[in-house]
Order: sequence, then C-alpha cells, then structure tokens
Amino acid sequence: MSYITIRDVAQRAGISVSTVSRALNNTGRISANTKAKVERAVAELGYIPDSRAQAMRSSRTKTVGLLVPDIRNAYFAELAYTVQDSLFDAGYCAFIGTSSESAARQDSFITSILSQRIDGAIIVPQGEETDAMRMLMEQHLPLMFMDRHVESRTGDLTHVPVVDSDPEQGIREALLDVKQHGFCSVGYVSGPIIASPSLQEREQVFRTVASEIFGEEHVFVESTGFEQSSCASVLHRMISVGVKALIVGYSPDALRVMDVMAREGLVIGSDISLISFDDVEIFRLATPRISTISQQVQRIGRTSAALFLDMLEHNVDVQSQRVETMYIPRESLGNA
Amino acid sequence: MSYITIRDVAQRAGISVSTVSRALNNTGRISANTKAKVERAVAELGYIPDSRAQAMRSSRTKTVGLLVPDIRNAYFAELAYTVQDSLFDAGYCAFIGTSSESAARQDSFITSILSQRIDGAIIVPQGEETDAMRMLMEQHLPLMFMDRHVESRTGDLTHVPVVDSDPEQGIREALLDVKQHGFCSVGYVSGPIIASPSLQEREQVFRTVASEIFGEEHVFVESTGFEQSSCASVLHRMISVGVKALIVGYSPDALRVMDVMAREGLVIGSDISLISFDDVEIFRLATPRISTISQQVQRIGRTSAALFLDMLEHNVDVQSQRVETMYIPRESLGNA
Repeated sequence: MSYITIRDVAQRAGISVSTVSRALNNTGRISANTKAKVERAVAELGYIPDSRAQAMRSSRTKTVGLLVPDIRNAYFAELAYTVQDSLFDAGYCAFIGTSSESAARQDSFITSILSQRIDGAIIVPQGEETDAMRMLMEQHLPLMFMDRHVESRTGDLTHVPVVDSDPEQGIREALLDVKQHGFCSVGYVSGPIIASPSLQEREQVFRTVASEIFGEEHVFVESTGFEQSSCASVLHRMISVGVKALIVGYSPDALRVMDVMAREGLVIGSDISLISFDDVEIFRLATPRISTISQQVQRIGRTSAALFLDMLEHNVDVQSQRVETMYIPRESLGNA
Repeated sequence: MSYITIRDVAQRAGISVSTVSRALNNTGRISANTKAKVERAVAELGYIPDSRAQAMRSSRTKTVGLLVPDIRNAYFAELAYTVQDSLFDAGYCAFIGTSSESAARQDSFITSILSQRIDGAIIVPQGEETDAMRMLMEQHLPLMFMDRHVESRTGDLTHVPVVDSDPEQGIREALLDVKQHGFCSVGYVSGPIIASPSLQEREQVFRTVASEIFGEEHVFVESTGFEQSSCASVLHRMISVGVKALIVGYSPDALRVMDVMAREGLVIGSDISLISFDDVEIFRLATPRISTISQQVQRIGRTSAALFLDMLEHNVDVQSQRVETMYIPRESLGNA
C-alpha cells in the first residue's frame, strides 16, 4: 500500500494542495467552507500529516540561498531583489551570492550554503550539472533553478523546477517591427552562450523566426563571449555585411554596443537600429530610448518565490513555469 | 597585571599589528628581517597568542554577511560585488542581503546572520543604533560599517570601524567647475537623508563650500526622501528660483531628474546642468554624458574587504578609513 498524501486530500476535497496545506497549518486566510471540506476529506481518507516534514519544518532557520551571476547586471539585480522581497514578505531572509558566470564560484557558494543551516536554494545555474549541485540535491533541500536550466548529465537534476522566460513571443514581435520599419536584413548578437542554455535557446529561436520572416540569407548571427572588446568587432562585421538593425540577446552587450557607437560617432536609430533583451532602467533613460524585449523580470522573480514557498512550506512538487517575453517598441528602431 | 597582547609585541618591534599578526601566522609576505624583529619582541615580552582567538579561528565557516540598502542601485551593486570579489579571493563566501533602506529589514537580516554560523559582517547601516546591531556586537563577531556610520546612542558602536568616502574634495572641485562655467547660483538635491548620516554630511559640506564660493544667498538645497514623485517638484522649485546648475547627492535621484527632464522636453547641459554623486555606468552611457562626483566605489570596497580580513584573520583592531571623492567633468555641465 502507499501512504495517503496531502495530494490525495486535495483531490478528494476538490481544492489545491497549497490551500489544503494552509487549512491544515492554520496559515493564511481560509474560508470556513473550505476548512470544512478539508476536514471531511482528512477524516474520510484517514490522512496523517508527514511527521518528517513536520520535524523538518520545526528546525527551519527561515533563510534561503539565492545565487545570481552578477548583481552589477541590472536584470539580475532586479531579479534577485524581487525574489528577496517576496521571500521577506513570507518571513524568509535570502542570502544572495554571485557566481561571476563561473561554475567554480557557483559551487563555492553552494558549498558555503551547505555548511550553513539554510532551508533551500534558488539558483541561476552555470552551464552543466556539477558535483556541488548534486550534493545539494542529496541533502533533499528544496532547490529551484531560475532564468536558466541545466543540461543534466546524470538526470538527477531533471526534477528541479525551472522558472524562466519563453523568448519566442518577444523575438517574433520585435522582428515583425523590424520588417515593418523597412529593413530587409537583421543581425543578432548572442552573448556568452557557453554559460547559458537560455542564451542558446534565444539564439536558436531568433534564427528560426528571423529566417521565416526575412529569409535565411538575410539573417546574421554573431556571438560575443565575455570580452568587452569583442562587441566592437562584432558591430563592425555586422556593418560590413550591410546589417542596419540589430537585436542583442544579452543586455550587457547592448550597453557595450551603445558605448562603441558613441565613441565612433554612430547614431542609434539612424546609423544602426538597436533592440535589446531586458527592459532595464538604462534603456528607458537613454537618448534615444532603446526598444527592448522584456523578460518581465518581476514576474519571473515573484513566480519563482511563490513556487519556492510552495516547495518549502507545503512540501509540494512544483512544475516548471515559463513567463512570456514582451516586445516594447521605442525610438532606437528607426526606418531603413 | 594585564596580559601581554599583540599590540605590545608590535610596539616593542616597532612595526604594525597586522604585520606582527602575519609574521606569527605565517601568512602573507614578511621579510626575514621583520620576522626576526617579531620573534625577538615575542621572546622578550613572553607573549602567548590568545587561545580563545585561536579556537575561534578553527571553527570558522569562511562565510561573511554583507548588507547593502538596495542592489538595484548601481553604486551599491558595484560596492557589494567588489567586496564579495575581494573576500572570495581570500577564500571567503559573502552572503549579501538588502535592507531596502529600512531599519526593520536590516535587523531581520542581522537576526538571520546570528542564527547562522557566520564569521562576521560588513554592513551599510540604516540610521541609528538598533538592538540587533548591539546583539551582533555582543557576539564578538567582527563587524564593520561601510559607506555610512551610525549615530550611536549607547556608545557601544563607536568602536566599529567605518570605511566611507570623504565628500569634500569632490564637491569642491565640482562647485569650482560650476563657477568656472559662468553660473552665479547652484542647487543641491540631497536625497533620503533620514536613512544616512553620510547623505547628511554631504549636504552639510555642500552648504559650507557652496556658500564660500557662491555666497549663501545663491545656494539652494532641497531634500527628496524616497518618493519618485518628489524629484519633479524639487526640479520645478529649483527652476522657479532661477537655479540652472544642479548637484545631486544621491544617484537614484539623478536618474529620476533625468527622467523628468526627458518627459518635459528639458535638455541636460543647456536647460539644466547636472552633476551627480556616484560614477555609475548609466552616467557614462547617457547623452550627454553626466558629470559625476565619484566615491571611488571599488576603492571603498577593496579597502573594506582588506581591513575586514585583518579583523577576521589577525584579530586586529582596525581604524576607520575615508576614501577621497573625485570630480569627473563631462558634457552635462554646460555654460550659463
């Protein structure tokens, strides 16, 4: 036989697992009617709350590890801030670490987390599955990936839920607007794709949709890596093949492109039109204002925190979720 | 009698406490000559290293708490990143928290730190001395303040070393440049001064130096608080009294002023000239580029980390340090 779980109670009562959990733990607002339904289902099924989960709960420190690549990147600063804020509202303190886009640093943060009495971790992972990630899994601490997923070698990490954005809608809307403005070709700067399956996916979606709209021979893609200098040469190569509209997949690269253009006297929106991923403040304050593909960072952050709290407080297996990207047109896209 | 301390050894040997500590612990580069001096002084005084300090050292977790007000503010993101980076190079992992400029959130972070096995804390403090700060002191954990000091009610916190910037040089150079460009009056936007004795000092230094250069009747000061909306009304009041050159003491306010000006069709450098504290990326990428008073944030971060490691590893009482501010002229200051 198998044990009766909270899931069975939820199914019998016809309400969600998290509502059942709140009713059982007397947390949050639950109507009398809902509470009665839960109590009836509990009685009918003979449900006994999982004592290990109870014990775990009582030894909680109410602290969560939160790892992002770089808080100097405004997108990750906003993401980390939003998660921390949502967790704080639920009574948790988030300890933020940065990996500097290095798997070794990520693993050092995870090791430090494991030496502390921390309740769980939300991580923007670096590249592939690592030993430290597996150690974290083996501790049975709630673990969630955010913004990126991990290519799992052993399969252990395929059960870790991921909250990230779906690039397709934003890229498609942006490309249609580029076409609308009279451009016959389009370029894409794809960023340090080695560190991030998300950047790889973004590039792939761009190739597919851009080829569909412009024809494969009018689509140009260049990768930059982490070197500041490479943005200048990428820009020059794009110009040399006649590209005058550029979509940038990684916002720090867009800032570098803006910097190169300013130094070389190139005007955004007339010499080169520019659209960047990530709707961060600097793009709204620039002259001209930069069109962006927004990942809806606050929605990613709030969704991550809410699902993570479900894992942490209600011992629920949560599903991965994707947030739509949105195109935000501004003046940096001129006419061809 | 009183025990012989490392301080006595340093005095006898005629070298600094931290050098003695490095010699005794065989860390860092120490010349043979210096090492001999230390050994002689140790032998002469009969110095015995503090065993409690030794015991404490052995139970280290190599983790440090690092609290800043808001990582969405690029200045604090850079500061936290620099400290974390320097600590990482020394084998320490920093857990970053944000206080959202709230003393309650700060204290919640400190309480969480205290529930963990953390080696010490570097904090950008909020306003006055709080109970949580005193609890941290009572644990005898190494504690340092960064960027701001605390008005200590009990006097317990007066021994906590502070690393911050000295506003005078940067403000003076900026004001002389404003004068040089033909302006006869100058305005200052002072930010949310309640949370920060540093912002209060900045405003005070501005008043003094500006009155000296322009005459008191030509100097205008307005405070903003945390509301986005107040920047617009401050800007309008400044314009109404004829101020055409503005120094902003808190960089998020400068971004808001830029935003208000863009919305109202006012041109930076001709309608209003602008100089902001904090040399963050957005000011270098704006059109026109914004003149700034740099706090040399990386120097503050690296100095903080180095002094903190002295406290942590060598049990040394370190002195507070100030980093000079530097004026960086750019095109946002036009002619009167």
